[in-house]
Amino acid sequence: MTSTPLDQHPGSPLGLHRVLEPAGVLPQAAWRLDTRPEIWPDEVRVGVQRLNLDAASFRQLHEANDGDPEKIRATVLEIVASRGKMQNPVTGSGGMLTGVVEEAGPGSPLGLEPGDRIATLVSLSLTPLVLTDGLADWDGRSEQVPCRGHAILFGRSIAAKLPDDMPAELALSVLDVCGAPALTYRVVSAAEEPVVAIIGAAGKSGSLSAAAARRAGASKIIGVVPHDAEAAILREATAGNGHGRLVDEVVIADARDPVGVSAAIEQAGGPADVTVVCVDVPGCEGGAILSTAQGGTVIFFSMATSFTAAALGAEGVAADVTMLVGNGYVPGHAQLAIDLIRDEPGVRAIFQRRIDEHSE
Amino acid sequence: MTSTPLDQHPGSPLGLHRVLEPAGVLPQAAWRLDTRPEIWPDEVRVGVQRLNLDAASFRQLHEANDGDPEKIRATVLEIVASRGKMQNPVTGSGGMLTGVVEEAGPGSPLGLEPGDRIATLVSLSLTPLVLTDGLADWDGRSEQVPCRGHAILFGRSIAAKLPDDMPAELALSVLDVCGAPALTYRVVSAAEEPVVAIIGAAGKSGSLSAAAARRAGASKIIGVVPHDAEAAILREATAGNGHGRLVDEVVIADARDPVGVSAAIEQAGGPADVTVVCVDVPGCEGGAILSTAQGGTVIFFSMATSFTAAALGAEGVAADVTMLVGNGYVPGHAQLAIDLIRDEPGVRAIFQRRIDEHSE
Repeated sequence: MTSTPLDQHPGSPLGLHRVLEPAGVLPQAAWRLDTRPEIWPDEVRVGVQRLNLDAASFRQLHEANDGDPEKIRATVLEIVASRGKMQNPVTGSGGMLTGVVEEAGPGSPLGLEPGDRIATLVSLSLTPLVLTDGLADWDGRSEQVPCRGHAILFGRSIAAKLPDDMPAELALSVLDVCGAPALTYRVVSAAEEPVVAIIGAAGKSGSLSAAAARRAGASKIIGVVPHDAEAAILREATAGNGHGRLVDEVVIADARDPVGVSAAIEQAGGPADVTVVCVDVPGCEGGAILSTAQGGTVIFFSMATSFTAAALGAEGVAADVTMLVGNGYVPGHAQLAIDLIRDEPGVRAIFQRRIDEHSE
Repeated sequence: MTSTPLDQHPGSPLGLHRVLEPAGVLPQAAWRLDTRPEIWPDEVRVGVQRLNLDAASFRQLHEANDGDPEKIRATVLEIVASRGKMQNPVTGSGGMLTGVVEEAGPGSPLGLEPGDRIATLVSLSLTPLVLTDGLADWDGRSEQVPCRGHAILFGRSIAAKLPDDMPAELALSVLDVCGAPALTYRVVSAAEEPVVAIIGAAGKSGSLSAAAARRAGASKIIGVVPHDAEAAILREATAGNGHGRLVDEVVIADARDPVGVSAAIEQAGGPADVTVVCVDVPGCEGGAILSTAQGGTVIFFSMATSFTAAALGAEGVAADVTMLVGNGYVPGHAQLAIDLIRDEPGVRAIFQRRIDEHSE
């Protein structure tokens, strides 16, 4: 590669040309990436300002280093130096980053220009990264890692411009879950005034999905929460545009109890035509399936979803439901989520509360 | 329950009224079921002739009992006697059964009559079962368990009449995977003359899905197989109704290698608008996603599918693809699969070959 001028290589939109070892795999599966700052024609180089480590990754780093900030910092530096990306070798996960665009190749389809403040929406586990400041400004005590260095985006990477009218922390928190409202919007739009149940409606992805469902034409939105405290939060949440409340019905039920949660949703006006699972708790597949009408759709956004539990669960109760793996990428997802947080005071309040709790 | 005449209880279509412990869970999650032969109005009682134990369950029974047929038989009898169903407590799995309908309640929606020869398409893990012959006719050496006793089907159970024009073993083998062609048919029908890729096209669910895709209007069918031997089988497979071959293109590729399999499918006329994953091997998510056009659909039928690998894999390459969990139940699935095996000599040959190999 190095013997030919870069502009004679179109580069791979997937970044295959940046994979050093093993050869021929995708950047996410690679052990080591090529981090050279010179960009291929469809790439973008970003001046990095902050890493947001994946929660599972930071927990592992914290535990493996007995919580010693110095050792944690050294481990992160070592990973990035040896792999050319911040992919925790134990958890396999990465995180996201924020920074400022330094250079955009003429063939980049991402629509970015030098000076744009952005967040990456593809994982750090596949993003070429160099750190140049020894992480001197990071205390090693949280997932938020202020830093200096550069990162590379490919043709098929995803990045979102950070909005000027909200704090970066709020914007990042919204972008982190922006796939959920986008896919919910698409599915609800394709149905005819469906009844929508959101399991975990008082959470981040759940509240955004509820707002997206309203905008997409849901006739009724049932929000499911595990206990009184979350029910109170959800009942307080108002909707934008004079729609009254974020959800029409608030139901308290254990999402892991198929009989209980489906009965509660039925009593609130179900079964649902579209059920959206937004709680990261194992064992919610059966309840979501039973709560959904024949011919309806379940969207699983929880990473705790078991593929086999979903497949066998539907078969076991002869449920003719379409079950979707919640794809984190839907075109326009970042913009929709940012628009929702601007227009929906109830959703914004839920996000602000989570941020405040976290910083306490 | 026992103090009230059964006909005054409508019964639960899910069989909740048959759950003895723990109370309130679905029959599949229950430790013990009520196996009384008297039926609720929407139930059906079946005289059992044969159990087909799930392969994972039989393997566990075989290993835990050092392959001793006497001990294996005793273990199965003990499980059924104590739980009221044949659900292996270690694997959680069951299997299916064949038998003859003894009595159908007046409210049963299954359309069965006394004397019908049927196979159940819901798992033994949720089917009330009594064995009365001590499994005297079973040699304890295979998953095929000849037996006598009775089983109960609920309102929402699924059963298929066994066709008279083919051996029971072939029919069972077809019914075991009949969800795959049915969902493939539905998805391909909803697209406009799509290119369809079948990963694992020389297998049982794969070959049926290929035939279903043809019938549903696929413009081109690309069959992916792992090696020359399977490629030869697939190239030999003719299609019914003068369509020529079962698949249009045969591609040899490792489905676990995203770059390799997607390049091979592209060369054969891809990317696919619909990709169907029918190989029970872990790690096929990325390849299926990369082989699918933007806006296309991936159907995962493999029980080795990882939910998180699919969700994160699509996001990592900015793939706007709809990903479906392969639901084993689609209305009409048994009839479609039986029709296909009747009409498609190539698919029938593939099934016959697998049955012959198994009995060698």
